[in-house]
Amino acid sequence: MTGSDSGDTSPTLDAVARLAGVSRATASRAVNGGSRVSPRAQKAVDEAVHRLGYTPNQAARSLVTRRTQSIALVVPEPDERVFSDPFFARTVHIVTRELSDHDYQVVLLLAGSGDDQEARMLRFLRNRQVDGAIVVSHHRGDSLPDHLATLGLPSAFIGRPWCNTDRLSWVDTDNISGGLKAAQVLLDRGCQRIATIAGPEDMTVGVDRLLGWKQAMQSEGRPTDAVAYGDFTEEGGALACRQLLDKHPDLDGIVIASDLMAVGALRVLAAADRHVPDDVAITGADDLGVAERTDPPLTTLRSPLSDMAAEAVALLLGQLDAGSTAPRRVVFAPDLVRRASA
Amino acid sequence: MTGSDSGDTSPTLDAVARLAGVSRATASRAVNGGSRVSPRAQKAVDEAVHRLGYTPNQAARSLVTRRTQSIALVVPEPDERVFSDPFFARTVHIVTRELSDHDYQVVLLLAGSGDDQEARMLRFLRNRQVDGAIVVSHHRGDSLPDHLATLGLPSAFIGRPWCNTDRLSWVDTDNISGGLKAAQVLLDRGCQRIATIAGPEDMTVGVDRLLGWKQAMQSEGRPTDAVAYGDFTEEGGALACRQLLDKHPDLDGIVIASDLMAVGALRVLAAADRHVPDDVAITGADDLGVAERTDPPLTTLRSPLSDMAAEAVALLLGQLDAGSTAPRRVVFAPDLVRRASA
Repeated sequence: MTGSDSGDTSPTLDAVARLAGVSRATASRAVNGGSRVSPRAQKAVDEAVHRLGYTPNQAARSLVTRRTQSIALVVPEPDERVFSDPFFARTVHIVTRELSDHDYQVVLLLAGSGDDQEARMLRFLRNRQVDGAIVVSHHRGDSLPDHLATLGLPSAFIGRPWCNTDRLSWVDTDNISGGLKAAQVLLDRGCQRIATIAGPEDMTVGVDRLLGWKQAMQSEGRPTDAVAYGDFTEEGGALACRQLLDKHPDLDGIVIASDLMAVGALRVLAAADRHVPDDVAITGADDLGVAERTDPPLTTLRSPLSDMAAEAVALLLGQLDAGSTAPRRVVFAPDLVRRASA
Repeated sequence: MTGSDSGDTSPTLDAVARLAGVSRATASRAVNGGSRVSPRAQKAVDEAVHRLGYTPNQAARSLVTRRTQSIALVVPEPDERVFSDPFFARTVHIVTRELSDHDYQVVLLLAGSGDDQEARMLRFLRNRQVDGAIVVSHHRGDSLPDHLATLGLPSAFIGRPWCNTDRLSWVDTDNISGGLKAAQVLLDRGCQRIATIAGPEDMTVGVDRLLGWKQAMQSEGRPTDAVAYGDFTEEGGALACRQLLDKHPDLDGIVIASDLMAVGALRVLAAADRHVPDDVAITGADDLGVAERTDPPLTTLRSPLSDMAAEAVALLLGQLDAGSTAPRRVVFAPDLVRRASA
């Protein structure tokens, strides 16, 4: 907050203070968020506000400062399943913590599918009901990058957007290099027939990890036909692994684009009596608490999610402070974490 | 939305329309949310808005209508674990769907612990950055019911609040009757030593289900000493079950206050070589997708969560339409669902 209160010039705040039996300064603090106000004074002010119909409103305040002190965390996922993904929970946690340090309230916008829902969310952003937006888990079809690039609302994407990459601020992990590193692990241990379970084709993270795997295969003159796609869920990984085993029974290595999908693949490999890593070596990606608890534990790529989320917040705060949405981007390198699966 | 736009009287909207090369009506629709606007026109208007620095702002609009067309869904849970609870995902889904039908944007407020976070959230609500609030998963220590009762912000609680029950609107399931019904199932099948794994003592749902179990025991002259508490997670249920087996090795029935906790208890019972239901019969509660997939499937109490969430939305919309926060409450009966565990 700026500390100033547009109600200061209004007699109504004085009336609130009088009725509540507190000082003007206390009433102002109580109306502005309640820090350094005793519970008793806060209650008296709240009651006075209610009785007098005083609106300590964002409306009047924002005509002056145009600040709401709130930031949208936009998750354009159409499905409740997003909740069970550790990527989501961790991102929410870090973004909330970082923005709290700067006195921002985080409001989570779960953008489902459907034109109506999208129109409503855009209305919310266009009307500046928040000071800025952080967008995660973005899909190809979303029009959000287009709109944000045009609206000039301060924003930062976690994960490279599909379009307007030069007009928007974003942070990402170098997932092409990640796919390469994972494939190299399997090449180095002598795997002869290396497949991949790729992420969704409409997400940059999925496409990039697949591209890295493909580059590694091509540079060794290996075939690139053993590809199945999953949706980053355990079930999706199991399904893709079954497809690969059917079509390519000779496979002895799989680069898998997420640890959750690797959990599903491990189940299918166990049911098919393929020992990991001796018969089939596998790698995962993410390392957000799942990889060390599987049997065997997963060799995986650690995305520096904490750093990414914190950097996205920093990019956004930079825009808010500077009053400019000049685009910046930051790309992190993934770390390879060696465990027993490859 | 009211359909009116406070910008109508401002020359600036005309300027936007001229620069965008669209009609005033189209510009107004585009600025207000974009329904019935072609993507091309929307983009032209957005660009004009940005170039002219026109603020189609909530500020000016809400001075007239005082409406934001957004509703807070407040989840006062201090922990990321809330995401893995199906109760949470389902509630978010239903509340979002119901409010979408009435053109409201849902903003999710995850209220962590700490005075700062609470003060920020109260500032957000007090400043009327939303038109109303739906509160779920409420704990004893939260000051939210106090504040909402005082602020006069339209609100509805899913689950009875701890205090101000006569000043607030809420929906609940009759969990005392639920606890009774579950205990009766175990009494009817001849269980001699019936324990319970209760929910948290700081949540009304936990306390109510325990009370129902206790009433059933007392009415049959049975002891009420075999009680352990869990936190509604699988781990919490496993821990509580171990405590019960240690202290009361003769138990042959357990009323468990949630299906997730029952999953943990099943694991512990299997490890202790106690067959379910022959050695120990158990019941769960919730029936949100977990109960039919356990081994054996759970006899459980189905909370009418869809009805509760829809009714909470109806109570809130009633307040918004009437411009009054006169309290109303609705209590649903839980259904007993018989499966193999008891």
